[in-house]
Amino acid sequence: MSTENTENMNTEVLDESIARRLKLDSQGLVAAVVQQYDSKEALMVGYMNEEALRRTLSTGRVTFWSRSRQEYWRKGDTSGHVQYVKGVHIDCDGDALLISVDQVGAACHTGARSCFDAGGELPSVEGFRTQQEEVAQ
Amino acid sequence: MSTENTENMNTEVLDESIARRLKLDSQGLVAAVVQQYDSKEALMVGYMNEEALRRTLSTGRVTFWSRSRQEYWRKGDTSGHVQYVKGVHIDCDGDALLISVDQVGAACHTGARSCFDAGGELPSVEGFRTQQEEVAQ
Repeated sequence: MSTENTENMNTEVLDESIARRLKLDSQGLVAAVVQQYDSKEALMVGYMNEEALRRTLSTGRVTFWSRSRQEYWRKGDTSGHVQYVKGVHIDCDGDALLISVDQVGAACHTGARSCFDAGGELPSVEGFRTQQEEVAQ
Repeated sequence: MSTENTENMNTEVLDESIARRLKLDSQGLVAAVVQQYDSKEALMVGYMNEEALRRTLSTGRVTFWSRSRQEYWRKGDTSGHVQYVKGVHIDCDGDALLISVDQVGAACHTGARSCFDAGGELPSVEGFRTQQEEVAQ
């Protein structure tokens, strides 16, 4: 039996108590922020539908839904740059996920460790706390 | 002259070289991941259009576009929970931003420091590197 047949026979669905908490967009997706679990470096943002989240929660490997290719994308299957799941958080209103991972090699398709390293910094004006806010902290 | 009038008279636009790099979704938005600059804690995900990004880059304060209220939302104006900009990165394909901030108080409207603390952890299976991947690291 091929892997594809096995996948087609998959009858599991995302736990109803989790599915209820997701606020999916018009394409049935939520944003998933991926962060290296120990250094807390922000690595990339991907998107998940219910099934991608189910696979991520149940297999130890991060799976996204590729919006450009319209298919499931298990990170590292072609590049070797696997993301091992260390923890998954949902945000307060259910439209974003935070995936803590152990990233093997580069998270970015460019070869950079992080997609934000690859894109780089934009020039910005720095903001500073008021004296009152400094004291309150 | 009121603040509102001043805003309406604003004729500035986002720098063309930056605007060109943004890959906006069908609603003209990009996801913006907000991270505490020193602890690297992931605080929340918001959305920005070109003008929200322009304001974020040029004022030292984070401004989002609120998808639910369909209006600009300068973080902290009503709550006092201001986000001071420390740095802004764009990702490799221009559809996500990473905003490093100094967060005053709670990032989440629930009063939690992070929206991911508020939502909480989902049960997940942990993944581990293979021996080969351990060695390669």
